[in-house]
This record gives sequence, structure tokens and C-alpha cells, in this order.
Amino acid sequence: MNKNTKVNAAILIIGNEILSGRTQDTNTSTLATWLNSIGVKVHEVRVIPDVEKTIVDTLNVLRKFNDYVFTTGGIGPTHDDITAESVSKAFGLKYEIHKEAFKILETYYNKGEFNKGRQRMAWMPENAKLILNPTSGAPGFSVENVFCLPGVPSIMKSMLGGLKNRIVGGEPILSLTISLKTVESEIANSLTQVQDNNQDVEIGSYPFFHAGKLGVSIVLRSDDQSKIDECNLQILKFVNEKKIEVVDR
Amino acid sequence: MNKNTKVNAAILIIGNEILSGRTQDTNTSTLATWLNSIGVKVHEVRVIPDVEKTIVDTLNVLRKFNDYVFTTGGIGPTHDDITAESVSKAFGLKYEIHKEAFKILETYYNKGEFNKGRQRMAWMPENAKLILNPTSGAPGFSVENVFCLPGVPSIMKSMLGGLKNRIVGGEPILSLTISLKTVESEIANSLTQVQDNNQDVEIGSYPFFHAGKLGVSIVLRSDDQSKIDECNLQILKFVNEKKIEVVDR
Repeated sequence: MNKNTKVNAAILIIGNEILSGRTQDTNTSTLATWLNSIGVKVHEVRVIPDVEKTIVDTLNVLRKFNDYVFTTGGIGPTHDDITAESVSKAFGLKYEIHKEAFKILETYYNKGEFNKGRQRMAWMPENAKLILNPTSGAPGFSVENVFCLPGVPSIMKSMLGGLKNRIVGGEPILSLTISLKTVESEIANSLTQVQDNNQDVEIGSYPFFHAGKLGVSIVLRSDDQSKIDECNLQILKFVNEKKIEVVDR
Repeated sequence: MNKNTKVNAAILIIGNEILSGRTQDTNTSTLATWLNSIGVKVHEVRVIPDVEKTIVDTLNVLRKFNDYVFTTGGIGPTHDDITAESVSKAFGLKYEIHKEAFKILETYYNKGEFNKGRQRMAWMPENAKLILNPTSGAPGFSVENVFCLPGVPSIMKSMLGGLKNRIVGGEPILSLTISLKTVESEIANSLTQVQDNNQDVEIGSYPFFHAGKLGVSIVLRSDDQSKIDECNLQILKFVNEKKIEVVDR
């Protein structure tokens, strides 16, 4: 893939526990930050329940419209872990024991402990490529552009390192944050003007209330540092004119 | 709406800052927990960028397939706040100054401070119903089954109380959590059996590593307390037989 190509991804969070509000998802933020760092922009995130038809249908939409899809959740040993079987159905592939995964799990567990439940984690779409798990043995897997990771945040995070060479990103997405002691409405018009003059830079404006400070963070994002710098200058110009204080955040 | 009807909702998080990983979304969990408590089940969450066409298209899908849609983000005074205009387009409604919202904002700000940027927050789809904001003045709004809230978590949360009488939920979704000192694979088969025998209870299994404890939380969800109780008994039976310790979490 050409380094100048824009590369995008979707994240698919699979799990009733997120939809019920019981569990606070943090995998989106971890994955998105990591993907950004390797030049992959996240276009869309969906959170869906542990329902096979929903997983199959959603995957078949997302994998068509994105360079990469990352799923988290549903690859453990219990009855509600149906991601591997659903991915098999989405691709029309056999769902079978993955020999290498079986060996890894057999070695990982003590003799006599590799029971039926644990063997379930070796079932995958045929010819899936493994994603190794340095934390707790059970591997994730990928099929074409779909990468399936576990839901437990610490385990998921530990597996990203092993993926680096399998994801081809575009230009890294650069960003710069300018934090100001002001309110959004004070700078809205000037900021609109700067955005109009800098169409290639994505300018976001985010109010913050943090540690007793009230202000606005302006975030500039682009794959071209010189465009960010130019945009930054234009912002600092009106900030200066309005005598607004720049603050650390 | 009949109290026995299942009522479902989708949450639509609008904002580049979530997709870039810069900001950790917490609104999903707040909204989902609140919706559950009033008998509304969240079927799906999507996170999308501040792009008009994406907002319009996604809204038009979600509002068709869900009883309610809740959006967060994009209703402030800056150029990247395009939710109100996008909702207008999705419904084919005029985008205009909402007289009541204008009055609220005019009263909220000191004389001379109600500038162009702030006036922008009074622009809404025609005939939108306001959602009052006890924290920072600027109201949210609803059109038919779509409810638009701000992205700042503390403000968003403060506005939910005022919505209670406008959302008609079904039977509240009840839940019970049983936390065990075990690993998932130890209970996977027994749990599958219990799920097979209790189709009307949604049984989730979630490993935890928390404060030095390692275990599994089993979450039972249903709108029928007696079914949860029966399911609980069946779980405690195998837990007892396997001599697994029940723990607090």
C-alpha cells in the first residue's frame, strides 16, 4: 500500500456488558490511539450485542467499507463467546479446530487442565492467522482484513505489539493541541474563519473543566506538519489579538 | 405504549475526538445505565465523525429501527458543532432560530455577552422540543424519537432528569451479578447448560482482575425477577458442587 494512501478502520465492540452500561468500554480509545500512531484513521465504532446475526451482518458491512476492522470481545471459553463462529459465518468459512492455537493452549495449561471449555478457544474460522497473546495464552486471530481481539482491556492491549507488521498504515496522523483560557463562543467566529482557510486540517474545539480550570482545547489534525503549523500561527494570531491566555493542559 | 412491550434505543456518539482516541467516551455508559433503569434496552451504539452526510445517513437508519435514538455531541457554538443542522436535514425540516431557546440563552448570558457564537446554539430543526440544561444554559432538543444532548459528560448527565417523562420505557430490565473465585473455563460447560435451560434470561460471563482478585462475574438479565431467581439457584447449585467460592465485588 502506498504510504500516501489514506488508510481507515472500523472498531466493532462486541458485548452486552457495554450496551447495558455495566462495563465502561476503554478498548476504543486504546485501539484508536494505537491505530492513529501507525497512520490508520478510525472512521466508525459500533457496539453490538452477543447476537450471531447482528455480528455477521455488521461485520459484512464494516469489512466492505473499511481497510481494516478490529473486533474486541467474545473470544473466551463461555457460551456467550460467539465471535469466532460468527466471523466464520460472515466469511462463509468452516469453523474448526485451529491446530496451532490448539498446541499453544495445550502447552500453556498444565497437564489435565486443558478441558473442553478451554479447547473451545482453539475453534476458529479455517485458515485464520493467529494473533499471539503474551498475557494469558489464548490467541486472537485474523481473517483477511478483520482482526479479532479479546475484550479484557489489559490482554487486548498486550496483543497490539504483535500486530504492528500486519497492519499497513498511511501517513501518520499528526496532531497539535492548543489549550486556551476562554470559552468556545468567544472564539467560534475566528475559528470558523481559520477552518475555512485551512480545509486540509481537521480543527476540533473541546471545552474542558479540569482541576479547577475552565477552557477550550483546540485540536488540529492532519498528515502534513506544515499545514498544522500554518493553522497554528493563524490561531495564535487571533488569540493574541483577543488577549486570550494560552494554558497548559 | 404497553408496559410489557420491549423498548429499545440506539446511542449515537458524534465526535472526532472519540474516534481519534483523544477523549474517552463515558456518555455511552451513563446513558445506557439510565435507560436500563427506565426499561429501555440499548441495542446498538455508533460513534461517528463530525461529517454532515454521515450524521444524516446514520440517523436515518437508527431512528427507523429503534424506538428512541440519543445523540451526544456537536451542539455547541463552534464550526464543528453540526448536529442540529444535520438533524434538520435528516428529517427534512427547516433549520431556524428556536424562539424559546433564544430567550433562554438571552436570559442566561449577561447583557452584551449573547454574541453570534452563542446565538448559534439557538438554531434548531423547526418545532424541535427543548431539553432543558440546568448546568450551562444551552438546551438540547428532540425531534420525534431523536433526542440530542451535549457531549460534555457532566452537562449531558444533568439533563437526563428532565427527560424522564418524555421517554416511555417497558418493564425495567433487572439484573443480578454473581461473582466467583474461579476462571471461565472451569464453569463454561455448566453455564452453557444453565443458559440452555433458561432461554429468557440473558447470561453473561465476564472475567475480572481487580484489586488483586481474579475471578468471573456472571450477570443475569431479564425483565422477570422470578426467572432470574430460578437461574440464580441453578448456578449456585453447580457452584456449590464444584466447591467454588462466591466473592463480593
